[in-house]
This record gives sequence, structure tokens and C-alpha cells, in this order.
Amino acid sequence: MSKAFDFYFDVGSPAAYLAWTQMPRLARETGATVHYRPFLLGGVFQATGNRSPMEVPAKSRWMRDDLARHAARYGVPYRHNPHFPINTLAQMRAALGLQMRQPERLLPFGDAVYRAIWVDGRNMNDPAEVARVLQKAGFDPQAVLALTQDPEVKERLKAATQAAVERGVFGAPTFFVGDQMFWGQDRIDFVKEALQ
Amino acid sequence: MSKAFDFYFDVGSPAAYLAWTQMPRLARETGATVHYRPFLLGGVFQATGNRSPMEVPAKSRWMRDDLARHAARYGVPYRHNPHFPINTLAQMRAALGLQMRQPERLLPFGDAVYRAIWVDGRNMNDPAEVARVLQKAGFDPQAVLALTQDPEVKERLKAATQAAVERGVFGAPTFFVGDQMFWGQDRIDFVKEALQ
Repeated sequence: MSKAFDFYFDVGSPAAYLAWTQMPRLARETGATVHYRPFLLGGVFQATGNRSPMEVPAKSRWMRDDLARHAARYGVPYRHNPHFPINTLAQMRAALGLQMRQPERLLPFGDAVYRAIWVDGRNMNDPAEVARVLQKAGFDPQAVLALTQDPEVKERLKAATQAAVERGVFGAPTFFVGDQMFWGQDRIDFVKEALQ
Repeated sequence: MSKAFDFYFDVGSPAAYLAWTQMPRLARETGATVHYRPFLLGGVFQATGNRSPMEVPAKSRWMRDDLARHAARYGVPYRHNPHFPINTLAQMRAALGLQMRQPERLLPFGDAVYRAIWVDGRNMNDPAEVARVLQKAGFDPQAVLALTQDPEVKERLKAATQAAVERGVFGAPTFFVGDQMFWGQDRIDFVKEALQ
């Protein structure tokens, strides 16, 4: 029986960024396949009544420290994005569209966008900046833009987000090992245990 | 130089209960003194705009699983309280009053109340039930009740809660090692690292 787990992510979440950096290691250490599940975190917040921890000022201040501590533990770069919060609708449509049409391009896309937002502090609310980031990562910005306007892609992202809500997702990142759900980049060790 | 850390707790928080069970071990492993800081979580929520994670149904369902997984990892009993949420004003006044007047009675009080709520599922919103729990743990319920009506105790709990907010506290449990703040029973390992 082949092992696998689901990883629900949105590029606007710094915690999902940290988790993203750890997925190759987790897959290697457990021998499990990662099923990447792009979804729209804003849609999940709306459907569940949850909200970004960043909306509570005291929690937001603490979270920046906490994310930096975890980044140091993982040995990955992290810097809070000065343009936060980021509207990720176009990026998540692009992620899902790539997964549908050119699946081998999903990981390079995620790497480039996560790095732009959570390492380099780029303003991904600005389409010109997005185009520069994509071009530098070897993508054709016009082709990616076309994906974000594709009715089938739009519909699939809505459906993926709705399906995530129905499965119990309320935040990002979220993992599933079978029916067991784990929320948070700080639960990777529990995901690992569940896979072993 | 003697090491110490602050532990902010409210008996109504299941995460603070789990942390409470780990404080003796943390103190032993680090050689640090625990400064127990009773405060009113409801007051902190009001002041910071934060709210209980239990207020989001999907998050609440997940949290019960997550708390049970942590309890299993710690090797301590845990059961969600059917009478949650609990108004903890009287219990937190009693905790602070005991700390002021009979400091050696704080830990037995916390042990008894945490166990009643987060292991035995007792209804601590019912004064008669509270009296039974306290009596069984060797307390004089009338004396404890008197503490909860003591104007100095009332004032001190307000001041302690306000001071916690000013220090950056937005939830429970919260730890401080010097100026470094850590939120959550799942951050005990970071507290330990900061103490070492």
C-alpha cells in the first residue's frame, strides 16, 4: 500500500510557506507522496467564520516572532511581507491551473511565488511585479495570466475550496493522513507520526 | 544568576491545563523557577479583540483532536468538558487570592480545579459542584468563596489581567523568558530552549 498525504496551501499564508519548504523532507523521511491541494484561504475564512490571526494586533506581533523562530529551526529564510495581506486569488488560480495543465510546473511556481512573498518581500498585489517574478522564474507571464482567466480553472478553485471546507479545513496549512486532519506548520511532526 | 519564567494561566483553557501538567517537568529539566501568573482569559480576549478558538466550529472540532493528541504525547488524561465554556472569574480570583494569602495552596488548588474541569468533566459553573470539588481536595469552600469576594483580590486580578495585556498576552497559556513571549502549550519546547 502506497502512503500519501494531502497538503492544503495558499501562498498568502506565511505558515503555509514554512510548511511548503518542509514537504520534500517530510516525503523523503516517510516515503509518502505529497498531494498538493491549492485552495483559497480567504474563501475558507468566509465559509467557516475563521479569520487570519494577523487581524488581532497582539497575536500578529507574536506570530511574526513565532514564524521567525520556526524558520530558524527549519533553517529556511523568512521575512514578514510588508504588503501583507495579499489577495491570492490570481496566484491560487494559477497554481491550480498549472496543476491541471502542466503538473510538473506546480512546484517551481510555488517555490517562486512563496519566495517572492515570504523571503524577498515583493508586492504580489501589483500585476507588473507578479509578471517580473514569474518571468525571472522561467514562466511566461501572459500564459499564467490566461490561466487565471480560464473559466474551468476558476470553477475548479471554487470547487476545491468548497471541498476543503466540507472536509473540515479552516486554515492553512492543513494536512490529511486518511481521515486525520492536522492544522498548522507546527503539526508536521504529528503528520510524520501518523504516516509511520 | 537564577533562571525563571512566567506562566500565565486560566483554568478555563484546556491548552493551559495541558501546559499546567508539564510545568514541574519543565522546571526540573531546566532548573528554572516557575512564576505562576493567574489572569482572566475572558478579560484578555475583551481587551485584545482575540476570541476563543472554540468559537469557530470547524476549529473547535479540530482542537479537541489536537488536544487529545498532545495529552497522549504528554501521557496525561484529558477529556473535553461538556459544560464548556466555563466562567472562570471566581476560580481565577480564588487562585490569585490563595497565591497572595497562602501561596503553598496555589498548586493544590490548580491541580484540583484543572482535574475537575479537564479530566472529570465537572460543571464548575455550578457553585454546589465547585464546593464539592474543593472540599474533596482539602479546601474549606467557604474560605475560598470569601477570597473570591475580597475587594483586594478582585482588584489584583483586574490589575494582573491588565498587566498581562500590556505585556502582549492575548491567549492562554502564555510564557515569558525575560522579554521573549511564547503562546501555547505547543511551544513548551521553545520555552525550554530559551531557558537553556
